[in-house]
Amino acid sequence: VVDTNAAQISTALGELGVRVTRHACVGDDLDALVSMIQETGGRADVAVVTGGLGPTMDDLASEAAARAAGVELVLDSEALAWIEGLFALAGRHMRPSNKKQAWLPAGARRIDNHAGTAPGFSLTIGRCLFFFLPGVPVEMRLMMEASVLPRIRELFCENGPVYGSSVVSTFGATEAAIGEEVADIPEKLSGVRVGLRAVFPEIQVKLYAEAGTRTELEKLLEEGRRMVEKRVGQWIFSTGGKSLPAEVGELLRERKSTVALAESCTGGLIAHMLTQVPGSSDYFLFSGVTYSNAAKEAVLGVKSETLRRFGAVHEETAKEMAIGAARVAKATFGLSTSGIAGPAGGTEDKPAGTVCIGLAAPGGTFGYRFRFPFDRERNKIIFAMAALEVLRRHILKMPIPPWPK
Amino acid sequence: VVDTNAAQISTALGELGVRVTRHACVGDDLDALVSMIQETGGRADVAVVTGGLGPTMDDLASEAAARAAGVELVLDSEALAWIEGLFALAGRHMRPSNKKQAWLPAGARRIDNHAGTAPGFSLTIGRCLFFFLPGVPVEMRLMMEASVLPRIRELFCENGPVYGSSVVSTFGATEAAIGEEVADIPEKLSGVRVGLRAVFPEIQVKLYAEAGTRTELEKLLEEGRRMVEKRVGQWIFSTGGKSLPAEVGELLRERKSTVALAESCTGGLIAHMLTQVPGSSDYFLFSGVTYSNAAKEAVLGVKSETLRRFGAVHEETAKEMAIGAARVAKATFGLSTSGIAGPAGGTEDKPAGTVCIGLAAPGGTFGYRFRFPFDRERNKIIFAMAALEVLRRHILKMPIPPWPK
Repeated sequence: VVDTNAAQISTALGELGVRVTRHACVGDDLDALVSMIQETGGRADVAVVTGGLGPTMDDLASEAAARAAGVELVLDSEALAWIEGLFALAGRHMRPSNKKQAWLPAGARRIDNHAGTAPGFSLTIGRCLFFFLPGVPVEMRLMMEASVLPRIRELFCENGPVYGSSVVSTFGATEAAIGEEVADIPEKLSGVRVGLRAVFPEIQVKLYAEAGTRTELEKLLEEGRRMVEKRVGQWIFSTGGKSLPAEVGELLRERKSTVALAESCTGGLIAHMLTQVPGSSDYFLFSGVTYSNAAKEAVLGVKSETLRRFGAVHEETAKEMAIGAARVAKATFGLSTSGIAGPAGGTEDKPAGTVCIGLAAPGGTFGYRFRFPFDRERNKIIFAMAALEVLRRHILKMPIPPWPK
Repeated sequence: VVDTNAAQISTALGELGVRVTRHACVGDDLDALVSMIQETGGRADVAVVTGGLGPTMDDLASEAAARAAGVELVLDSEALAWIEGLFALAGRHMRPSNKKQAWLPAGARRIDNHAGTAPGFSLTIGRCLFFFLPGVPVEMRLMMEASVLPRIRELFCENGPVYGSSVVSTFGATEAAIGEEVADIPEKLSGVRVGLRAVFPEIQVKLYAEAGTRTELEKLLEEGRRMVEKRVGQWIFSTGGKSLPAEVGELLRERKSTVALAESCTGGLIAHMLTQVPGSSDYFLFSGVTYSNAAKEAVLGVKSETLRRFGAVHEETAKEMAIGAARVAKATFGLSTSGIAGPAGGTEDKPAGTVCIGLAAPGGTFGYRFRFPFDRERNKIIFAMAALEVLRRHILKMPIPPWPK
């Protein structure tokens, strides 16, 4: 199963200055779990375990913890009362299997779960303090913040050096190109390490710093960000860890501007990305996801003559789509995409991966064409990102680069 | 970093019958990598390693493999020629750091990468045959299929029992409820194991089977699926591992029907989900993502009287939105959502998590209201899934259940 918890926990621990040496995963097999817990208990100071606290037969974490610690499972009456209360409140029928979640290893300290039925617990096994948390990401995260991180900070992190990190997000250059430009930063700025992370289609530069005080740490990270900006500034869209849709939204909000979309090949993805940002209704008005030519004409007012002469995938069509979206929604900007995400649908002069982007802005209307070499899913994502980046660069009066690099 | 490779590799190996005992992850630290490789080399028959083959300074896999095996890195001239050829073909400038990718441990067998610059390699370290692959998911997957899986099959899996798995996907019931219903299947059907997997908001029942021949295996899995259907059939939307949008799309295609959407709170997500499916242009015509009331009126023809009387979040408004979407796009079905994903925007009688779904169908127009208890991101997803499930159940003449359960 794809696991997002490990990355979140590692990030949170890294920010406390805890060195995360290893992450491991075993199947729902009692013997394997017990031996993994015992092995970790001989090696680490702290371990965070997620998952296996649910109500079903393949949830084995409490039992494995008890076995590894050589203790029994005991019924925690407060945990049981909490679970019963939750079911009563929701007017739902409590199932016998939910009761299992109230049995914890003897000697464990319960960690309350305010977002679900499964309580977590902490327990020392071997030389290591274990925290057992549910696998549901939102429950895990709340319990980390409320209980686990404060206890780790208190036990291990007082009076030590201060650690922190910062992320600079880029779009449009390759990992190799960015990597070469920033490779010398650690030599020139003592106390700073640099890591690269590709989150398609972004390339993020991560700066990790260590200092004696928080003020020194902030200064180091600030200096590191300045060095990254000097080297690859033309590709940066955020130095604060924000997503491109959030950055574009912020720019629109600051200018009291609004945007309307006309999406063909991106199929609603740009609208989805923009509306993931809370408060986006302040600047996002409308997207016309017009897969069919009939909808392009009826909703956006694209001329049938334009479609006939240039086809659906063309700068001229994209421009009319953008104009139509802005007009229908009375928006400051109209932004459109028309292209071929693939795998089918390409032609010789418009192969799969081709996207035309239209922008209707107060100063005029613009059309662009790019070609990307990916599969359907990634083409759709990079089409959406490229369109948002066209809008961002237009607002900031930056040139539009000849993607892809 | 969130890692999707481990889950894919585990699934592929599991289908070969290879028991995946452990997955582990270490940072970009040479000593930690070397000791992890050596430790694994003492424990496993086969290991698949991904990542660390890139061009930058924090890509250390080849060096770590060479150290763990006690050999030197040597320049593989064929790999170098391949990388140079790729750059020449793309008309791109080859950077010095890309040359690093052609250095492999002495004695390693190269694994060609037809989708990128980094070659992989296999190498025996300790008792274990290691496969080192790039971390880029699409490159990793192609190399697994072309090289790694065939070699593992040949070396370890001939003449053994046959393994396989099957997934049944449900929406609308809790994990505990599904789990209790299917818990007894392994007792009643020897050779079959059952696992539950929550991929929000789906609950998947996974059947794992082992048999002497492929025919027996298929029979076992078929029998397992029948038992799952008998127990939780009312919640199942797919017994073939398909997504709900793909299932809905298949139903529409079979009936030569089309759909148009009017999305408010789902912000384009339903359109994005439907258009993720290749060939969706056969049945998906249009989505009007109408965040503003003005766009609801202008594009969908929702009456201002309706908006004034009932508000944007109401069954009557949702019904008019659905009718408008179907009319504008000339679609068989119109499907709409209007609600409050949260965190802000809720009121006493329409709290955050409320969604109204409208359906305009040949037989009439229908409105529904549900309330879900999640955060913005998950509410948006479950709103979209609920709307698609309303359409699926309507097409199949199944009752609409009172979600959430």
